[in-house]
Parts: sequence; C-alpha cells; structure tokens
Amino acid sequence: MKVSLELIVRSTEIDVNGHVNNAKYLEYLEWGREEWYEKAGLSYQTFLEMGIQTVTVNININYRKECRQGDVLVVTTIPEKVGCTSYVLRQEIWNQADELCADALVTSVTMDEATRKSRPVPEQLKRLFN
Amino acid sequence: MKVSLELIVRSTEIDVNGHVNNAKYLEYLEWGREEWYEKAGLSYQTFLEMGIQTVTVNININYRKECRQGDVLVVTTIPEKVGCTSYVLRQEIWNQADELCADALVTSVTMDEATRKSRPVPEQLKRLFN
Amino acid sequence: MKVSLELIVRSTEIDVNGHVNNAKYLEYLEWGREEWYEKAGLSYQTFLEMGIQTVTVNININYRKECRQGDVLVVTTIPEKVGCTSYVLRQEIWNQADELCADALVTSVTMDEATRKSRPVPEQLKRLFN
Amino acid sequence: MKVSLELIVRSTEIDVNGHVNNAKYLEYLEWGREEWYEKAGLSYQTFLEMGIQTVTVNININYRKECRQGDVLVVTTIPEKVGCTSYVLRQEIWNQADELCADALVTSVTMDEATRKSRPVPEQLKRLFN
Repeated sequence: MKVSLELIVRSTEIDVNGHVNNAKYLEYLEWGREEWYEKAGLSYQTFLEMGIQTVTVNININYRKECRQGDVLVVTTIPEKVGCTSYVLRQEIWNQADELCADALVTSVTMDEATRKSRPVPEQLKRLFN
Repeated sequence: MKVSLELIVRSTEIDVNGHVNNAKYLEYLEWGREEWYEKAGLSYQTFLEMGIQTVTVNININYRKECRQGDVLVVTTIPEKVGCTSYVLRQEIWNQADELCADALVTSVTMDEATRKSRPVPEQLKRLFN
Repeated sequence: MKVSLELIVRSTEIDVNGHVNNAKYLEYLEWGREEWYEKAGLSYQTFLEMGIQTVTVNININYRKECRQGDVLVVTTIPEKVGCTSYVLRQEIWNQADELCADALVTSVTMDEATRKSRPVPEQLKRLFN
Repeated sequence: MKVSLELIVRSTEIDVNGHVNNAKYLEYLEWGREEWYEKAGLSYQTFLEMGIQTVTVNININYRKECRQGDVLVVTTIPEKVGCTSYVLRQEIWNQADELCADALVTSVTMDEATRKSRPVPEQLKRLFN
C-alpha cells in the first residue's frame, strides 16, 4: 500500500540559505505518514481503541536535493518491513521535476498505552506489509 | 572536542501529545552543531572564505525518551569520524535527570561553493577528528 | 483585488491543546500575502528591481475560532488602505464550515533598499487600492 | 508585576532574509507569557482547577527592529488593564543593545472550561493589575 501526499513549500519553511531546513523535511514525512495511516483506516483513534500507541524510535534520512519556496513536493509512504513489535515505513520526497529530494526509513514500535511496554504489532497493521 | 549547548523546552515546541515533536529534535541538534562549529572557530563565514559550503546528507537519529515543556536539555556534539570529503558528528540530547533522550549521527559533505562539487575536508576541520 | 489561498492544517501545526497555535496563524497569513503579491505581479524580485523592500510594521489579529488538524482553511487577502509610504492589507482565515477563524490588518511600509529609509509606495502597488 | 524572560535567537528561527520571521515573534511572546503566569503562581493547571481556560482573542504587535541569529533577547510582560471577563498584557522584546525590537498588547478572555462561555476574571489574576 503506497500513499502519496502533495504539498507546496511555503515561505516560512525556508531558511537563511533559501531552501527548506533539514528539520522541516521530518515534518513533511510526518504529514505523509498521517495520510498513510488514514488511508489504511488506522487513525490515532483506532489505535487508541486497541489500547495501542505507536512511537517513532528511529529515523534515518538521506538529504539528496534542496527544496525551495513554491516547489510542489510529493511525499510517498510504503511499508518496508515488519517485526514482532516494530515496523518500518519507507518514505520519499519528490519534487515537480521528478527528482528525489530525500528518502528515509522510519522505524516505529507498538506500545501498550497503559503499561508503556512494547506490544505485538496488531494484525490490521501487520497485513499491510505483505 | 566535545561541545555542549543547554536549552529549555518551550511551550510552542510541544505537540498534541504533550511532548517535543520528532522534527524539533533536529532543530535542537542543528543548534548544537552551530555551537560546535563556533567553538571550533569554524563559522559559516570562515567556510565561505575558504570557498566551502558544508551540506548535511544524512541524519540517523534514535528517539529514546520524550521531552516535555520546561525540560532543561543539553545537546552534546563530538567528532565521530572523517573521510576524504565527508565527516560525521555524533550528537546526543540529555535531560535534567541525566537521561538520554536522543542520539544521532549526522553526516555532512564539504562542497566547493562555486562548482557545487564535493571537495576535500579542509585541514582546520579534519584535525578536530584526531 | 481579492486573492484566496487554500491550505490544510497539518499534524505538526497543532499544539498541546489540539488546535493551531497563535503564532502559526501568522504563518498562514504570510502565505496568503505571498499569494496576493504574486497574483498582483509584485514578486519579491519585482520590488528588488525597483530598489524597494516592504517591511511589516504592525499586525493586529483577532482570533475568533480554533482550527484543528485536517481543517481546510482559506486565507483571503484584500487591499484595505494606502498611505504615502505605507499600506494595509486585510486578511481573513475561514474554515470549511464557512466560519471566520481569524481576521487581521497587516501594515507594511515601503523602504529604499539601499538607504533603509521609507519611500513612497510605488504606483504598481498603489493602484491596487482603488 | 513585571516578568522578564531571556532567550537566544537560534539558527532555525531565521528566515530567508536573515532575520527572525514575524510569526516567530509571537512564539517568543508566548514563552514570555508562560513565564509570567508561572511567576504569578497561575499555571495552566491552577486555572484548570478553577474550571477556567484563558483564550487569546487579540494580538496587536508592532515590529520595530530586526532580530538576528545569536541575538540575546529579553521578553518583558506586564499587566496593562483588566476588564470583567478579559485582560490585557503588554509585552516587549528588547535586544542586547537595549533596542526595542517589538511591543505588543495581548488580550485574553477567561472562559468557563465546561460551558465554553466567558467568565469573570478570577481574583487571583485580577489583583495583579492593581
């Protein structure tokens, strides 16, 4: 299941060098993941009803190309791999010239909301990785 | 050469879950690196005078503990390793209870400002890795 | 000349109370003004060619309704009044239920880029206020 | 009761023009108000225990001087005036050269947390305006 989110780079997202700041890329990725979870029918609310919270534990991002104000970017999110209590999403940011601006692996764990201990990835999420 | 930067988590840096957002950690790390470069006598201006720009190409960050409003954090930056045209800084974020909140490896390349091609890491920077 | 910009409230723009933070509204307004200047054929570049910089000197904003994640907002910008060396834009933020979320008056002055002194509002900008 | 908060302008708070963005000033002001409420013994929690929420309804800010990376700013907050269900704080931002960078009036209303209707300003808050 691959989900794409389109966004436009806004003026206040540009740093002193005239391009999007490193940290902002992580916001773009988060917006892309939100879209992915929503399209998957796995909203924050749905997880809460299962007593589960997902927590991001690692982000490994390659910065490949600068993004500038007015750029129309597409953030893609696809399932990469799933373990017992963790899973990895692969995300990419492409610009309007079809250039790869960044790619990242984002690792999350599923936690029991009450005990704050890790818990098996629920079936509804796991099946998206096949 | 290890450099520490202290900061306080502010209200507008907190997300809907009541803790510092993933992306914000990268801003904290950038502030820490700025401090490191400055203490090393390697300001943005100094690099420009050498005709060099440094560009971050990879950040690999582990999120280990949530940070909350009012937390007093210390960002540490130390040289990890240096190659021909790239170098890696190790950064950590600690809270007031001496808990490790995040650690990251940040890889940058040195680029010729005019040609935008990679260029050997200058001696002034290289020697900090010994 | 009224210009509208549509945007979607993203997860990282939400604060601990679950709604868009006060400061973020000002970013939305800035995005709206950028769109207005662009539609007016008055880009940052165009001003620079006239040797002019515009500087925001006052923002007076009323917060009327909370905005939440996923809200589809429209930022409208219209000329309010023009003086000798300053001008006022009226901006509003509306949500998908046609509720007014905020309205603001934004006052800017036109400055000579070289001398940093105020300068008459150029005719190309002035005529948009009639 | 005047409260001051010191802060340092960080690299990621600088926009493409090399100075602090308009919206960021509002974050600085919010940090200053948080400090004011805390020093006044009126934390978010204290208000909640009274069943009260404070909501910002207007900010009127004058931008007087640019702030730059590394600037050491002081945000001051003083009570300006109080009405039946609303109150106004005056805030200023000063730089290390004792120049006024911005001043603002911030109007808030006190709301009943349950009914979401306006409610008289509590005595603990009101007495700070005398």
